[in-house]
Parts: sequence; structure tokens; C-alpha cells
Amino acid sequence: MRLFGSILAGIREKAPLVHHITNYVTVNDCANITLSAGALPVMAHAEEEVEEMVDIASALVINIGTPDPVQVARMFVAARAAEKNDIPVILDPVGAGATSFRTKIAQKMMQELSISVLKGNAGEIGTLAGRQAHVRGVDSLGVTGDRTEITTNLAEKLGCTVVMSGPADIISDGSRTYLCENGHSYMGKISGTGCMASSVIGSCAAVSTDHLSASVAGVIAFGIAGERAAMDAEGPGSFKYRLFDSMASVTPGDIDRQAKIRSL
Amino acid sequence: MRLFGSILAGIREKAPLVHHITNYVTVNDCANITLSAGALPVMAHAEEEVEEMVDIASALVINIGTPDPVQVARMFVAARAAEKNDIPVILDPVGAGATSFRTKIAQKMMQELSISVLKGNAGEIGTLAGRQAHVRGVDSLGVTGDRTEITTNLAEKLGCTVVMSGPADIISDGSRTYLCENGHSYMGKISGTGCMASSVIGSCAAVSTDHLSASVAGVIAFGIAGERAAMDAEGPGSFKYRLFDSMASVTPGDIDRQAKIRSL
Amino acid sequence: MRLFGSILAGIREKAPLVHHITNYVTVNDCANITLSAGALPVMAHAEEEVEEMVDIASALVINIGTPDPVQVARMFVAARAAEKNDIPVILDPVGAGATSFRTKIAQKMMQELSISVLKGNAGEIGTLAGRQAHVRGVDSLGVTGDRTEITTNLAEKLGCTVVMSGPADIISDGSRTYLCENGHSYMGKISGTGCMASSVIGSCAAVSTDHLSASVAGVIAFGIAGERAAMDAEGPGSFKYRLFDSMASVTPGDIDRQAKIRSL
Repeated sequence: MRLFGSILAGIREKAPLVHHITNYVTVNDCANITLSAGALPVMAHAEEEVEEMVDIASALVINIGTPDPVQVARMFVAARAAEKNDIPVILDPVGAGATSFRTKIAQKMMQELSISVLKGNAGEIGTLAGRQAHVRGVDSLGVTGDRTEITTNLAEKLGCTVVMSGPADIISDGSRTYLCENGHSYMGKISGTGCMASSVIGSCAAVSTDHLSASVAGVIAFGIAGERAAMDAEGPGSFKYRLFDSMASVTPGDIDRQAKIRSL
Repeated sequence: MRLFGSILAGIREKAPLVHHITNYVTVNDCANITLSAGALPVMAHAEEEVEEMVDIASALVINIGTPDPVQVARMFVAARAAEKNDIPVILDPVGAGATSFRTKIAQKMMQELSISVLKGNAGEIGTLAGRQAHVRGVDSLGVTGDRTEITTNLAEKLGCTVVMSGPADIISDGSRTYLCENGHSYMGKISGTGCMASSVIGSCAAVSTDHLSASVAGVIAFGIAGERAAMDAEGPGSFKYRLFDSMASVTPGDIDRQAKIRSL
Repeated sequence: MRLFGSILAGIREKAPLVHHITNYVTVNDCANITLSAGALPVMAHAEEEVEEMVDIASALVINIGTPDPVQVARMFVAARAAEKNDIPVILDPVGAGATSFRTKIAQKMMQELSISVLKGNAGEIGTLAGRQAHVRGVDSLGVTGDRTEITTNLAEKLGCTVVMSGPADIISDGSRTYLCENGHSYMGKISGTGCMASSVIGSCAAVSTDHLSASVAGVIAFGIAGERAAMDAEGPGSFKYRLFDSMASVTPGDIDRQAKIRSL
């Protein structure tokens, strides 16, 4: 645990810059959760500046929640700059499986880019693993097969960390696999928690070259924040503002004490 | 009333997918109010996927709050797919009357697309009805003439349901007309309540082929949510987060009991 | 002080329309803080309507937080329309100094457009003043040299009002210079406070041709709102919703009594 807590401590100490190219629905939430985690968010997408912005960033989060060809092309430019600079790229393949357009974008990214962490729900990860999975819009309706196996195999195949989010999150780099049960069902009642989780993971990966541990740390920290936010929430609106309060209040020590995690 | 309450019950039961192509100012609010109502929001605009996403959706909301020709073209593609699939299209002609660009977009949509529900403020609906109306930015400064008559006549002419929002909302399909007095003046103190109302109406229309009743149910439900949110609000910020709490808390029974509605 | 308070009173009385072309990260916050201040926000960017919308607006806020060439071209069109109509243009050069793309956009705007108020953090203003300044993403890491001198000199050179935000805000038109110490460190814990400050300044400039006084009034009002919001905040999420509550509750009399301002 101490390892995971120390990653959060690293974010607070270094305030790394986390570059996002993301969807226009939850972009503000991504910016604010990044700040609450202790990192600095920046959003920039123009071809003219995307490489220069990546040059000063410590991690890149790409999220295809509202994709179009122009934006996707910029994500490729940014991700290649990230690879050149050796900074981690977090891919959130929002809606892969819902439309063939999204599935193909995510597949192309997995093939051509150096992805450090792939994070999606069961339907999205299942789709990208070639399993029978069902995604309706941006929500998972499930996947056929054993989730741990799917996640572990895909991580091994891709040579990166894969996070399959859900009531229990599975995090694997192919050789090490964790199951994390932090979090709260309230997180499904608002838009953007999946996107925010990717921002928190990106903030963690920005300060740790061990991307599996960074992903685990991010998943635990954000999950604890969700649990706390749910405590006195009177509905999705109050849950949401409390989520930012909670994320800012989670300490490295909390991660050590409150993590509901086990190695598989 | 029982009819209107049952529509909300239908949303909670079926969690229909509501596809939006909307403005970038209030898009997050639209997503969250849709979730609070019990439906699943999805936003997608790329030509490459818009039809495929509409194929799995149960309603389409198009909102011209920040229009440009590229986005408007995609709305046409989406609306035609919706027509082919026989799912309802809700049009929110934000700012019609403020600029000729917006007025013409809305008019073209009304002429060429199969709109199920047209929802706007008095200035917007008045403009589209060919009356002397005044819209400043996205706010109505009023319309000349009797609002009920304008709404009813436009609904008859267009062969769809028309909702003219205001301190009292008028909802008509040309033959049946309702006046709803739920709601609160606080709703004008934050950005996006008009857009959110369209999302709630879209969620209702996704589960009921009676678009007039769906619109009435949406207007009542969102109005009750506004009344509750205003109760302990200390300003527009606290009103806003409570609006999501309240929308999630409104039950079918509340609609039966708290509706302030009459048939005209 | 009475002058500054009267500007806020003017906003509440006239509810001026404030047109924004801004970034997609904080656009909703800009809309809502404008409403909380008492003005009416509108966002429109299409070439087809931008001039017509400026024609009915009382101020224009341009913010390059997520710039691309297409959007920047529209800002130029809008700003030229604003100049023709003699309405004030507020420029927020977000991220100038972070990438050469942003620096060049801001420089070109300063050279070719009639800017009434230039508002940025120390790094951004320092960069545009030709000083050694450091901007990481959209956050200032400081500037070499005396901040008051930099601000005053730049204002004199540009012939406009310059606001350098920071723990203490410096506002100058080259001949008159003020230092304002309202505000709270919490304002740096959420995304968008810089953008929101520009919207509030824009709302003030919409009702006062004295752009220095309008900027001072805006800085004081928003700073007081920040102080109040911080009072019972339990974190960045609760701070944020309270910021809108507070902005709506600030009165002209509060500005007279609570301003922490001195002439330099």
C-alpha cells in the first residue's frame, strides 16, 4: 500500500502538468478532478501547439468521448510527441463497441501508438479484447467471459496496463493483476466519472514510471473519493460537488488504510 | 395525471438512450439532467458515427445553442436517421430571433425534418411562428400576441408538439393544449435550464409515442425539480446542484400530486 | 469606492448582453458567473452570425484557452465588429508564454485589434510585455521584474487597461494604477477562475466606458465573491458552487465596504 500512497504524495509534491485531449461533455470535470488530485490540467488541441504543449507535460490523457476525424488526428500527433518525450499516454476509449467508428479509432490507437494505460468499462475493454461485449452509448451492458482473464490477456497482448472499470476494478499489466473494490454506485449516477478516473490515473502516471502501480493508486484514490462523497450526498448533484472536495481531501495515508485491494 | 406520472416511471424502468447534438456551453448539464431523470445520455456528432448512434437511441435532442454550419449539417443527418428509425426528434431552437442565422437554421429544420417536439421560449417560438418577437442573445424579451394562440397555431401548422416555456409553460399539439405552472424563477438565474428541459422532454418522448403527453410530463417533472431545488438554495450555485438532486428525487407519484397543470 | 459599487449597480439595472468566444473547458462557468454578476451571457462563434450577435451585445470577451486557427479567425471578426460598434473587448490570453502559438495569437490581437482590457496572470502578462516569464500550461510560474512596473508600462504602450491577476491584482491604464487584494487562495484550486474574472470584468465594462474603473470593480466584486465562497467551503467542489452564490450576493454597498484596494 505504501507504494500506492507515495504516488499520490508525489502528485502533491510535484504538481505535474497533465495534458488532455478529451471530449467536450466532461472536460471541465476532468480539469477540476486533476486539480483536486494535486496535478495541473491543460487542454490544447490545435495542430500548431499540441506538440509544444506535450513537451512541457508529464502525461497525456486522450479520451474519445466525442470524437471526430480532426480531433482524432490531433490525438495521434500528441501521442507521438508523448512517445518521443517518453511520457505516459492514457487512453480512455469511450464508447468503443457502441459504434464501429469508435471501435476502429481505439483499435488504430492501440496498434499505432505507444499506450501506457488503457482504461475503459467492461463493454469497451471487452470489445477491444475481441470479446462479445455490449456498449450502449457510453455505458457498458456487460461482456461475455471472465473479466479478469480478459483484462490480463489484453494487457499481456498490448504490453501495457489495462484497467477495466466496474463495481470492482481490475488492473493488470499482464503479469501483475489487482482487483480494487473502492468506489460507490453513486459514481454511475453522474456523467464523467469514467473520464475523471482517467485523469486521476494520468496524474499518477505523471509521477511514476511504474504504470501498473500508478493505475492502481489512481483507482484507489478516486474510489475512496467516491465513497466519501456518497456519504452525505442527497442526490447526484450534491454527490458531484462533494467528489471534488473528497478527491482533494484524500491523503497518501488514506490510501494505505482505506484501500480495498487485493492481488489476483 | 396518472398518465404523466407513468411516463416518468417508464424512463426509470427502461433507461432509454437519448442522443444529443447540442451546444458546448450546457452540454454537461444536459448529460447530467438526463441521468437524473433516469435515462442515459450520449453525445456524438461525427458524420462517421452519427447514424449508427441514432440507431441505438430512443430519442434525439438537437439544440442550436452554439451553431455552426458543420454541426448543423450533422444535426440534419442525425434527424433523418431518427425519422427513418421512427424515434422522436426534439428541437430546441436556442436564439432563434436573435440572429438571422439561427432563425434560418430553425426554419429549415422545421421545413425539412420530422420534428416531434419544438421547445423554445416565447421569443424563439414567437419568431418561428412569424410573430413580432424579441430575443436578446438566448433570452426572450417577449412576443406580441396571445401566447396560447401562437403556440396552438404553430403546433397545428407544423403537425407536432410545441412547448413555449416561460413563467407558465404552454404545451400544445394543435388540438390539445395544456398550461403548466410548475417551476421557479430561480431557473432563470442559471445557464442551461432551457436546454435541460429539452433533455428531460427527450427522455420522456423516448418512452412514449404520445409526444404531447411526454412533453407535459417532462415539463411538470422538471418544474417540480426546480421548485424543490429553490427551497433551500442560497444562490444560483446551490440551486444548480440541488436541481440534479431534485430531478433524481421526483417520483411518478409526485407528478400526480404536485402538477400545477390545466387543460386549455 | 462609490464609483466601483455603482458599476455593479449598473449591471444589475441594465442586464447587459456579454458576448463570449471562449474555451470549451470553462465556458459553462463563464456563462454562470456572468448571470450571477447580473449580466446576460451569450456564446456564438459561427462566421455567419458572429457580427450580428456582437451588434446586440454590450461587451465582447475573447479567451484563447483552447485556441485553434478557425476559432481565432472568428475572434478577429467579432473583435472588429465590436470596434465598429464601439463596445469594449476584453482579451484573456490564456496560456500565452506556454506555447509560441498562443503567444503569437495574443500578440497579433494586441497589434491588430482594439483591445479595451487585457487580463492575464503574471506569466501571461509578463510574456506579452516582453519580459522573462514562465507559464506552465495555463498557470503562471512567475515573471522577472517588478509586476507593477510591467503592468503599468504595458498598459501605457498598448493604450488600454491591463489587469495582472495574482495574490494581489494590479490594474492599470498607464496613468492610473490600482492594487487589489481581495480574493482567496481557494480560487487557484478550481479551473476557470481566471476566465470567470474576465467575464465579470466584461460585464462591468459593458456598463461603463471607464474601462479602468470597470476592471477594478470587476476584480473587487469577484474577489469578494471568492472570499465569501471560501468561508464555509469544505473543498474545491463546495467552493465552486458557493462562488456563484457569492457573486450573486455581492452588492454595490459591499464593494464600497469590503474592497481591499489602493491606488499606487
